[in-house]
Amino acid sequence: MARAKSPPRNAFYAQSGGVTSVINASAAGVIETARRHKDRIGKVFAGRNGILGALNEDLIDTGRESPAAIRALTHTPGGAFGSCRYKLKSLEQDRAQYQRLIEVFRAHDIGYFFYNGGGDSADTCLKVSQLSATMDYPMQAIHVPKTIDNDLPITDNCPGFGSVAKYVAVSTREASMDVASMASTSTKVFVLEVMGRHAGWIAAAAALADTRQHPLPLLILFPEIPLEQAKFLAAVKAKVEAHGYCTVVVSEGLHGPDGNFIADQGLRDAFGHAQLGGVAPVIANLVKSELKLKMHWAVSDYLQRSARHIAARTDVQQAYAVGKAAVELALKGANAVMPAIVRTSNRPYRWKIGMAPLAEVANREHKMPREFITEDGFGVTAKGRAYLAPLIQGEDYPPYRDGLPAYALLKNVAVRRKLPAWSKG
Amino acid sequence: MARAKSPPRNAFYAQSGGVTSVINASAAGVIETARRHKDRIGKVFAGRNGILGALNEDLIDTGRESPAAIRALTHTPGGAFGSCRYKLKSLEQDRAQYQRLIEVFRAHDIGYFFYNGGGDSADTCLKVSQLSATMDYPMQAIHVPKTIDNDLPITDNCPGFGSVAKYVAVSTREASMDVASMASTSTKVFVLEVMGRHAGWIAAAAALADTRQHPLPLLILFPEIPLEQAKFLAAVKAKVEAHGYCTVVVSEGLHGPDGNFIADQGLRDAFGHAQLGGVAPVIANLVKSELKLKMHWAVSDYLQRSARHIAARTDVQQAYAVGKAAVELALKGANAVMPAIVRTSNRPYRWKIGMAPLAEVANREHKMPREFITEDGFGVTAKGRAYLAPLIQGEDYPPYRDGLPAYALLKNVAVRRKLPAWSKG
Repeated sequence: MARAKSPPRNAFYAQSGGVTSVINASAAGVIETARRHKDRIGKVFAGRNGILGALNEDLIDTGRESPAAIRALTHTPGGAFGSCRYKLKSLEQDRAQYQRLIEVFRAHDIGYFFYNGGGDSADTCLKVSQLSATMDYPMQAIHVPKTIDNDLPITDNCPGFGSVAKYVAVSTREASMDVASMASTSTKVFVLEVMGRHAGWIAAAAALADTRQHPLPLLILFPEIPLEQAKFLAAVKAKVEAHGYCTVVVSEGLHGPDGNFIADQGLRDAFGHAQLGGVAPVIANLVKSELKLKMHWAVSDYLQRSARHIAARTDVQQAYAVGKAAVELALKGANAVMPAIVRTSNRPYRWKIGMAPLAEVANREHKMPREFITEDGFGVTAKGRAYLAPLIQGEDYPPYRDGLPAYALLKNVAVRRKLPAWSKG
Repeated sequence: MARAKSPPRNAFYAQSGGVTSVINASAAGVIETARRHKDRIGKVFAGRNGILGALNEDLIDTGRESPAAIRALTHTPGGAFGSCRYKLKSLEQDRAQYQRLIEVFRAHDIGYFFYNGGGDSADTCLKVSQLSATMDYPMQAIHVPKTIDNDLPITDNCPGFGSVAKYVAVSTREASMDVASMASTSTKVFVLEVMGRHAGWIAAAAALADTRQHPLPLLILFPEIPLEQAKFLAAVKAKVEAHGYCTVVVSEGLHGPDGNFIADQGLRDAFGHAQLGGVAPVIANLVKSELKLKMHWAVSDYLQRSARHIAARTDVQQAYAVGKAAVELALKGANAVMPAIVRTSNRPYRWKIGMAPLAEVANREHKMPREFITEDGFGVTAKGRAYLAPLIQGEDYPPYRDGLPAYALLKNVAVRRKLPAWSKG
């Protein structure tokens, strides 16, 4: 006797916050897995520009994209449906906003909410899951982890981080080789600024470029360690004396003993405008002025988090896996959870996908342990390296056309609206 | 009847000026080709830190490196023997320096001088060839072209340029996709600073990222076109209005209508130090202040010229080919020449190696034709694209170990000195 099945319900997927070179691999994991379960999941709607797409009822019908286009997302950086920096207020502050979300979901028979983001997004996802219960609108909310900041708890690491780490390690090795070969008559100190305003995970990855087979004189300036100017300059001097040159990798979040960001120097340019940001030039000029050493500096900014051409294969695989697992968890009836990467072995690196309750993910930050930073504050310990090393493993090159990566550009066809336009009131 | 052969003579090879991600491929071309002609060429000595190695009689015996190590140079960035920024004075100003070179060459029976560099080096190479004649010391001097600046005459392009061009085009596409996906609520203008102080060849390469299949709103600021602030801001505004965002690629050599470098703003930081360089932050802050648009900026600096991981296959092949051809030309008796790349077809790109007299190379600069820049001054014409497009073709990935490129580090064993130490007198 056939068991009566409930009709399939639709899914909503949105990208949230800063994008990465592999967030679209998670999107592919969600969409491809959903397509394999058409008896349970009808359409997958994506929010255009993230959660704003839900609030504005601006939904994208991913069903209009070919299987090849969705597959191509696995090698495409950026956010294919648009992301946004838009933090929903708390339920108490703006209940209407959450109610609007539920209204839109109801209008489009959305029973699955997949939210692809970092810590703030996990909190939003949790609130949506709670509200759907109180509003008597059954919906499963699953968070798909993503952030180059690597600061989500429970999961071994965050998809997006490994590829930035690989970019930083590769760039550090390459630029250091350039400097090493010129140092006798030219640049002796090279400063590379990397992201990570609150934690030094990304800066730490530079240490992976310094290996027994290929040593390089490297100093890392972490946001966790306030800059002691004299100690830092002495360390640079010692490296240059011993090796002829020195590479400095500095986190954008570096601050001084007074707690102020080093990048925030209150500069004014010739147009009279405040000159924003760039800790690398400040550090490089410090070296030049105090040590009289020729320096160069680079700021990798968005290049580091969009560099899909040098993504880590492990990262791509994990990004896809958490998207796939999110759908599978939903199909098993889970709600208010996040697929988490579980490390089962360091060497060889082995991992599987587990599950974390969102209540334990939201509002908890995975900071870099002090024991990952060497005692002098400028390097990464063996323990830190053991954690980081597997995450940059493997290459996963995109296809190329005419010398450039052939990245996907989706059609992003809009779903017809059913509700009046939303006014934030 | 066997013809009496002259005994083999040794060769000197040196890297000069700023290194590239493929200059070592030229070194491999020289060394591997010389090794195939041991009856004619004895040892290949490399100058440690370029021409300084010759002046200081600090020679490296490349014969101590295994065939595998020399092969690995084809995928290794930087200068494997060290390069230097050291411009020899003119013959008239410092004849003693040239005489010292000849003395060192005589002491080590060096009959072949292979000099791997840009325009200034070509001039040095020419002078060395002339002096060997006047000093009655027979030697053949062959220049091996190299420069990311792409400013040598006669040759179709300069080895090193194609890979920087590819890096810039790939990075422009990737970062633009990042910005496009965030622009609704975040950054609307992204500014990328690239090298090229005197010519816009490198900046122009960004235009290759903007294709019919993958269009992107791009403005290029060339060193050839003085910045007109109002016109530029209007162009940014129009792009943002039409596309939601705009990418600006700016040459470090951009200057204003007064002829001063835009980067040279006379800034002072909180330590009271002059803040050097960075045209990207100046342009980004201009956009922010005048248009009230959120911006981000990156400075790729050495990353762009050391990024062997994303080198253009065409560039690697040409770098190797000019090294190989230099030795073959020497074996044919040539002197005071440079192997030049000759383009025989655009689509498909076909090329061969020709020969240019050094007298026609030295002191002539290959500037970017104005007809390669669009009339508005912010883009690249079809003619410019046709020239640039083939140069970024193909990928040529290095091998990886533990997630990082396995680049060669040579032993660089010194040759025993035979002369008294050199004093510049």
